[in-house]
Amino acid sequence: MYPKSIKNLIESFKMLPGIGEKTAERMAFFILDFDEENVEFFSESLLNAKNNIRKCSICNNFTDNDICDICADKTRNNEILCIVEDPKNIYMFEKNGVFNGYYHVIENLISPLDGINPEDIGLEKLLKRIKENNFKEIIIAVKPSIEGETTSLYIKRVLEGLNIKITRIASGIPIGADMEYIDALTLERAILDRKELE
Amino acid sequence: MYPKSIKNLIESFKMLPGIGEKTAERMAFFILDFDEENVEFFSESLLNAKNNIRKCSICNNFTDNDICDICADKTRNNEILCIVEDPKNIYMFEKNGVFNGYYHVIENLISPLDGINPEDIGLEKLLKRIKENNFKEIIIAVKPSIEGETTSLYIKRVLEGLNIKITRIASGIPIGADMEYIDALTLERAILDRKELE
Repeated sequence: MYPKSIKNLIESFKMLPGIGEKTAERMAFFILDFDEENVEFFSESLLNAKNNIRKCSICNNFTDNDICDICADKTRNNEILCIVEDPKNIYMFEKNGVFNGYYHVIENLISPLDGINPEDIGLEKLLKRIKENNFKEIIIAVKPSIEGETTSLYIKRVLEGLNIKITRIASGIPIGADMEYIDALTLERAILDRKELE
Repeated sequence: MYPKSIKNLIESFKMLPGIGEKTAERMAFFILDFDEENVEFFSESLLNAKNNIRKCSICNNFTDNDICDICADKTRNNEILCIVEDPKNIYMFEKNGVFNGYYHVIENLISPLDGINPEDIGLEKLLKRIKENNFKEIIIAVKPSIEGETTSLYIKRVLEGLNIKITRIASGIPIGADMEYIDALTLERAILDRKELE
């Protein structure tokens, strides 16, 4: 029904998360009204992102270069390393500006049911890095889930004896959340990890 | 903060209608996980849509060729012509399958306040087409608004004396709509255009 050029564009937009037929059509027609310059920018951005983005050789973060901007920044606090499970999470921390140390992206969370064993999470690179640097604290910032907890405990065990403080980000009720919508596990954790008011 | 290749991709997605920072970020990260093949398809689809799509030389519909698929289809009812204000509307009609004649896209609706006068809506092409064909009915299917009504009346006047039936799609309450949300003008129109039950 649509000309092939429009049909292909609609199919392209439909590959995106959360984009159905109607929205894809709307976006495709919108593109027809774009300046040629913008369409070219968009088209090239897609190719460039796919072709240029690789893993930072130090921390596995996304980068256009061999080493990511964060690892290349020598002004950061080199005593703290934060372990995350996905490069996207680095950007969440960076946006908030609450953390000024370095990051390390592990490749997977341990999940025996999915066939992901401790040797599959790429700890050699992490261990090597820790031994070559002077980190005083390692913050484990993977999600609170069975896989996250298993992975945290495993990392803690592997790093034992290195005289480094190992911490885990806090779990509990999100700020501003309605108590009635909190799941039982979170509530349990929030009670277990309660703090004395000062 | 993001590598340039990711930043540009996020900016690209943000140019789309209804896409904010967060969704654009999500889409950009999603692209990084695409097969190379799909990214190339997406990238080329953008360029092809922009470069290949032109106006049908007969009806102004979008097409990859000189004449659109609908105008090229000789099996349709050649006695009815439906006038729309935007090529997108053709696809709405076609999806519903309620109409089997031909279409004509006028370039604008008359809107003196916006400097769009009767001579700006490209009626010469429409008139020429009507004179060269044997349409028995012209359905005016532009939106019910001041500009739409003005344009309809003007087209009717221009076509007077050609012995062609000129009709206007009905306005009224949309099927399934809640009466309490209907605006006053639509309600007025719905009452004026009421039909006797048979």
